[in-house]
Amino acid sequence: MKKTFLKNKRNIQFLIIGLGLIGGSVAKRLSKEGFEVLAIDKNDSNLNYARKIKTINGSSEKIDNKKKLFVIVALPPKIILRKFEDYLNIFNQADFITDCTSVKETLLKKIKKNKLESKFILSHPIAGSEKSGFLNSREDLFKDKISIISKHNGLANNTLKKCKELWFELGSETHNVDPKLHDEIFSLTSHLPHIVAFSLISLFSKRKTSVYKKYMGGGLKDFTRIAESDPNMWENIFSLNKKNLLKDIREIEKELKKIKNFIVKDEENKLEKHLKKIKKIKESLNR
Amino acid sequence: MKKTFLKNKRNIQFLIIGLGLIGGSVAKRLSKEGFEVLAIDKNDSNLNYARKIKTINGSSEKIDNKKKLFVIVALPPKIILRKFEDYLNIFNQADFITDCTSVKETLLKKIKKNKLESKFILSHPIAGSEKSGFLNSREDLFKDKISIISKHNGLANNTLKKCKELWFELGSETHNVDPKLHDEIFSLTSHLPHIVAFSLISLFSKRKTSVYKKYMGGGLKDFTRIAESDPNMWENIFSLNKKNLLKDIREIEKELKKIKNFIVKDEENKLEKHLKKIKKIKESLNR
Repeated sequence: MKKTFLKNKRNIQFLIIGLGLIGGSVAKRLSKEGFEVLAIDKNDSNLNYARKIKTINGSSEKIDNKKKLFVIVALPPKIILRKFEDYLNIFNQADFITDCTSVKETLLKKIKKNKLESKFILSHPIAGSEKSGFLNSREDLFKDKISIISKHNGLANNTLKKCKELWFELGSETHNVDPKLHDEIFSLTSHLPHIVAFSLISLFSKRKTSVYKKYMGGGLKDFTRIAESDPNMWENIFSLNKKNLLKDIREIEKELKKIKNFIVKDEENKLEKHLKKIKKIKESLNR
Repeated sequence: MKKTFLKNKRNIQFLIIGLGLIGGSVAKRLSKEGFEVLAIDKNDSNLNYARKIKTINGSSEKIDNKKKLFVIVALPPKIILRKFEDYLNIFNQADFITDCTSVKETLLKKIKKNKLESKFILSHPIAGSEKSGFLNSREDLFKDKISIISKHNGLANNTLKKCKELWFELGSETHNVDPKLHDEIFSLTSHLPHIVAFSLISLFSKRKTSVYKKYMGGGLKDFTRIAESDPNMWENIFSLNKKNLLKDIREIEKELKKIKNFIVKDEENKLEKHLKKIKKIKESLNR
């Protein structure tokens, strides 16, 4: 990709708000590429450590208004909403702003309310880990991943271009997905599976885990990685994507009930036919 | 492990009933180790191919009653029950018999009814794959895996010893788990997760899959491997482990409802607390 906005590295400052897994990984990659990176984090020791290992160059006191300020908000989705007004000063100074969260519609309302829709663009890198925090961040977290950009009305053309350049710099390809559709898709492909995984582990914990845990390899193990994900972030996501998620929970309940009824009624042929259809669908997804 | 029963290879014939993923993998390993392996399969081309590549030496016509016959039944669990009487003649000639299925209680009843409890021992290798059939079988399928042996009353001491030697020869360590507990454990750790995975893919198929499938990496992908598993075998398992599985489906429904209610009522703190507890449990399982 031909760089336009990120070409002159001396002319740009990146400010990362929230130096956790995602923010830390962005910071590590950009500083490695020779950009100046600043960061804000509630945790001072995070900031000190990041400065010590030269991931960042300082905090907001180093903002230089002769340079272009690119802001990447990497806070959990509810915290962004709650603290949005605290950062308005910075957002107003910024040349470009994006986020990294997996719920879009509520944040877009906030952006519009604060008349930032021209330069604040929604991003969602599909690159996480069940390990959270700055200590788990790594410069290649976004390499060969997809980052979703959710365009909205009122966006300046060059904001989209800047955002694409940013994710390209971080190693990702970008897809454009409408904010509303984004939230519907991720409710099903990510948020619901997390609820199911959390539920399976909760159920599991009610058995004699010391014995049961030896035999998780026959299926349960596949599900459990994501049950180790950050509880605060996932509570945020579940609450903010409430509407889509409640619909999807009701639908998975129906699917479970369907199989349950086949078993209850000993409808072996119907059950096998149902499973065959599902296997076929799954195989078609691999293509 | 010091070998007693499998020491004299010339004195033993193995007969595999059902030459699919599991039976084929047993056959490949044993023939590689220099044992004579015979097989029975409904599919003649399977048998011919296995003979051609020297995995097996022939079928039941080659049974030599001067040698000790070790029978490994590797059929889906319902097929074993249905065909049990067809193989009684062979079972009666055999020195040793085991199976490879993941539901135990119903088979044990059948064994006792046919007075085979002295030499027929229940095995369950925790080594499968979503890929089924002889063509996917491989000699190292059981390497470094656990194979469960479910001892029962009336078992001859040397039957247990033979079974341990067999799984050792195939590369697995063995654990002893009571048949009833076995079915309870695998209902939760394997059968329920398969039902959940099948249900998630069924739900997924009702959306615009061409778009949605690009974004499965955020959670759903972890679940979907097992939704490609053999529908016939899993229908068998679900039906045979009915009692345990219906209990577990009801309990996972309760767990989902619990999270759903937190979301419906906006009980953010309770939801976060619940997720935190689950994360802690999950982490303790890694220890």
